[in-house]
Amino acid sequence: MKVGFIGLGAMGGAMASNLVAAGHAVTVWNRSEAPSEKLASLGAKVVRTPDRAAQGDVLHSMLSNDQSVREVFLESGLLDAMDSGTVHVNHATISVALARQLAEEHARRGLGYVAAPVFGRPDVAAAGKLNMLMAGQGSAIEKARPLLEVMAARLWPLGDVPERANAVKLAGNFMIVTAIESLAEASVLARAYDVSAADFIELMTSTLFASPVYQIYGKSIAEQRFTPPGFALPLGLKDVMLAQEAGHAAQVPMPLAGVLRDSLLEAMADGGESMDLSALARVSERRANLAHRKK
Amino acid sequence: MKVGFIGLGAMGGAMASNLVAAGHAVTVWNRSEAPSEKLASLGAKVVRTPDRAAQGDVLHSMLSNDQSVREVFLESGLLDAMDSGTVHVNHATISVALARQLAEEHARRGLGYVAAPVFGRPDVAAAGKLNMLMAGQGSAIEKARPLLEVMAARLWPLGDVPERANAVKLAGNFMIVTAIESLAEASVLARAYDVSAADFIELMTSTLFASPVYQIYGKSIAEQRFTPPGFALPLGLKDVMLAQEAGHAAQVPMPLAGVLRDSLLEAMADGGESMDLSALARVSERRANLAHRKK
Amino acid sequence: MKVGFIGLGAMGGAMASNLVAAGHAVTVWNRSEAPSEKLASLGAKVVRTPDRAAQGDVLHSMLSNDQSVREVFLESGLLDAMDSGTVHVNHATISVALARQLAEEHARRGLGYVAAPVFGRPDVAAAGKLNMLMAGQGSAIEKARPLLEVMAARLWPLGDVPERANAVKLAGNFMIVTAIESLAEASVLARAYDVSAADFIELMTSTLFASPVYQIYGKSIAEQRFTPPGFALPLGLKDVMLAQEAGHAAQVPMPLAGVLRDSLLEAMADGGESMDLSALARVSERRANLAHRKK
Amino acid sequence: MKVGFIGLGAMGGAMASNLVAAGHAVTVWNRSEAPSEKLASLGAKVVRTPDRAAQGDVLHSMLSNDQSVREVFLESGLLDAMDSGTVHVNHATISVALARQLAEEHARRGLGYVAAPVFGRPDVAAAGKLNMLMAGQGSAIEKARPLLEVMAARLWPLGDVPERANAVKLAGNFMIVTAIESLAEASVLARAYDVSAADFIELMTSTLFASPVYQIYGKSIAEQRFTPPGFALPLGLKDVMLAQEAGHAAQVPMPLAGVLRDSLLEAMADGGESMDLSALARVSERRANLAHRKK
Repeated sequence: MKVGFIGLGAMGGAMASNLVAAGHAVTVWNRSEAPSEKLASLGAKVVRTPDRAAQGDVLHSMLSNDQSVREVFLESGLLDAMDSGTVHVNHATISVALARQLAEEHARRGLGYVAAPVFGRPDVAAAGKLNMLMAGQGSAIEKARPLLEVMAARLWPLGDVPERANAVKLAGNFMIVTAIESLAEASVLARAYDVSAADFIELMTSTLFASPVYQIYGKSIAEQRFTPPGFALPLGLKDVMLAQEAGHAAQVPMPLAGVLRDSLLEAMADGGESMDLSALARVSERRANLAHRKK
Repeated sequence: MKVGFIGLGAMGGAMASNLVAAGHAVTVWNRSEAPSEKLASLGAKVVRTPDRAAQGDVLHSMLSNDQSVREVFLESGLLDAMDSGTVHVNHATISVALARQLAEEHARRGLGYVAAPVFGRPDVAAAGKLNMLMAGQGSAIEKARPLLEVMAARLWPLGDVPERANAVKLAGNFMIVTAIESLAEASVLARAYDVSAADFIELMTSTLFASPVYQIYGKSIAEQRFTPPGFALPLGLKDVMLAQEAGHAAQVPMPLAGVLRDSLLEAMADGGESMDLSALARVSERRANLAHRKK
Repeated sequence: MKVGFIGLGAMGGAMASNLVAAGHAVTVWNRSEAPSEKLASLGAKVVRTPDRAAQGDVLHSMLSNDQSVREVFLESGLLDAMDSGTVHVNHATISVALARQLAEEHARRGLGYVAAPVFGRPDVAAAGKLNMLMAGQGSAIEKARPLLEVMAARLWPLGDVPERANAVKLAGNFMIVTAIESLAEASVLARAYDVSAADFIELMTSTLFASPVYQIYGKSIAEQRFTPPGFALPLGLKDVMLAQEAGHAAQVPMPLAGVLRDSLLEAMADGGESMDLSALARVSERRANLAHRKK
Repeated sequence: MKVGFIGLGAMGGAMASNLVAAGHAVTVWNRSEAPSEKLASLGAKVVRTPDRAAQGDVLHSMLSNDQSVREVFLESGLLDAMDSGTVHVNHATISVALARQLAEEHARRGLGYVAAPVFGRPDVAAAGKLNMLMAGQGSAIEKARPLLEVMAARLWPLGDVPERANAVKLAGNFMIVTAIESLAEASVLARAYDVSAADFIELMTSTLFASPVYQIYGKSIAEQRFTPPGFALPLGLKDVMLAQEAGHAAQVPMPLAGVLRDSLLEAMADGGESMDLSALARVSERRANLAHRKK
């Protein structure tokens, strides 16, 4: 198929590469140039403006936040430039409010629109093994399905209202951050009783919590290795706040999210800007003044 | 070996059965008689008073809470009746404060003492596949080790101070309850956006959170089946409060635990006494008034 | 002086009335017409478009939220229509982010700008006894001071950066909502021990907490009278969220605010839209299932 | 009347002094000797054992916590030594659980028992201006009333079940700590926007929150003066935990209390043992890393 791809960060670049490798004719655009060059070397066509990537059967986008999506799709006039035959598949983790607005803007112009946020880190994306949520009109999904199957280990249909996929993505990220905060608090409790974080985390993540989230972030906490970020702490804060916004809009109280927000904010105030989400462990440690008492 | 076993509830009964099946000479005592009969049928010797179970090489106990442990071991004078050659292995989930007191009381009398709380539900205990924590003097542990290996898939040594094992057990149970509350809040958010709890939970527990805790409690939440309890809600509340007490004694703030305590208390106030921990989902649902708005 | 006044709700109407009564030449505009009629009867000049109110020495505005302020001042082009000699005094409770933007937009156009949010309910405004915060350039403040003194019992200068006054206003409203939640939780505890809310609240508000906030909202809680709203619950939620946003922008964790947000959201989900902030007491009561157990 | 008084700390000493000054025959006992000497110089009779203070018409006690009350009244056998004509008035801030137990122990022995905890700091006690709660049998209260009136500005009757007075006292102390935490969080928000804590607190405590609690602790926060303690931080933590226990026993969730507990614990972990409750402000400040960013 003729495919466009906008947004070639660590995730988008890996996803687009797989589409190229699967034999599709992929036209890519990225705000900065470097990532496009790598895609070009794999066989993608690189264009200078996003509208030229938006002329195929399906346009994928994987931008980093609400603001980028707004700028590229709403404020630049890109939607007005799109052909009504093109389906837009938006993989970004965005707010439910923007998801709803995008659905309306596409519908008003007769454009197919699918929300398809993903679970998985860049290495999973590179392996084509993402878990991909999908919500949108059936016909749009069917058109895009062969492409989604290239990128995903499994597709998770969530109905025809795009924002549902975004709400589920945010709910999932909320659960990830909760798991990390839980590891952080529990491992500081263990340490206060002279059990090392490494021993405690090995125990928990090879028994009750033998799942990727606990194992990946648990390893960082056990090793006190918070840079470079796998899942950057500021993005985790952004996602928790988006989950809270989604909860607010739907009148769903989420007391755990309130705790996460404050812990993340405390991490940010102590240099967390460039750290991994697992740096939540530093906050728990400092609250208990553990470093000081262990002198 | 000559082994005593005190406390034959769902967990203790299964554990004692395995010791009998492994060929040990097991003498059992339980406050009520019915559970002892089953053990007798398997070949255990049943006695009428706990001191008579306390005369072998190792005495195991699996009582339900601090109060039972206090009554049987401290207030009844059982410790004074024990032979100095007997090692006491305490499998109960108890407070760190009581754990410390028990260690002192045993040491004062020259009795070996091992804290060996376990992770695993009754079916896991029956299969001899528990994850068993162990803390206490090396010689006491070595004496009991062949018995512990009968009951456990794996032994997790945590040093020679018994209370460490209890602190780790409470930290682990805190993580379990956090995971359930997280599922509860996230699934209500998903439902508010018209994604069923079953769909949401299947997604999360077969991808990011493919571990026993999430799968077991997630299934209950998805099916809205909160009785009979697997892990009874009042016991979950007790354990969260013991984790908070352990945190208090060691000056470790645990903000997630504060949220859990209140949600569990709210569940209790709404009939949770006889329900499973997964009934935390009812609290999230009611806070969002979901039942009412879905009419 | 020649004065404009935009926004004639319960607060703005009372404030504008006092300016008229003090002998100033007041030109008013309001989106809907009814409130203007009352001002006209007092001697104000009523105009059909906001720009015509913006031609005097000082333009006051008292709009209800960020959105109204944005629409009237930024999106309608009103700022561009203003004369550089006119000072704008903005009394609204708005976000720190909008406050910052407004300061920039005024400065760019050479317009004087003062943030002057107030503490006090409509009856206090009518009596000219508001506590009025003030932040902005000294010259702008001096020009407006005679007018502000008409409306306020006391002026509280907070320097020359307008957003400071807004941050302080939000911090104060956060404290108000905290006080109410505190009354709500404490009085339910008292009731659970068979002490009536009325007895408990009379005790607290005539001794330790003999201040207006506790007395006003305490009375509502004691009498279980939550309508009509004095301080509408949705506005309280809005203000707590604005305080959280201000905290987020400045990396200030506020754990109490997280609790308030969830309690307010829970109140909203249970019909709180048209109730007073004191309806937080209903949330505490329901969490404890008090109504049901008292049958 | 013939009166006994047990417990001569800062509060008890001032209260007993007033009874002496009012002409009553007061016999005092205190664990350590120094405080008794001062009472002796005023005219009180000092005895060496608490039972000798327990032989008058009314025995007052003002001990510092549950443990002291248990030791003196339950474990020492003092209750068994008391004459059935003596009414015990217990002014201590104790747990609801102990209050209930004491009521039962007194009733079983036919002893009159009144719970009469107080609001007010030592200077208020010295002035005889305490706010004194009272719960117990009517006849016991009537017998003690002339003495209570000596010590209190006002008596607050709360019915015939003693524990009610203790629950109300804990609810009140919970409100005090909440007010301080609220000041702490709000003033750090203000400071992050370059408004000094002193300016912010003067504004709030001379307007909306012009009541003793806010003024007293606000002054400490504004001046960053956290020693010597007026209300010691560890006692505040103890009281919040007793309020949580009272909430637990009555199935009343108190989310604000959870926040307070963690902030107090964090303060304790950072040297708060010997500080005033207002040192909660240090916790808020450190969470926002305010000291560091203001360099």
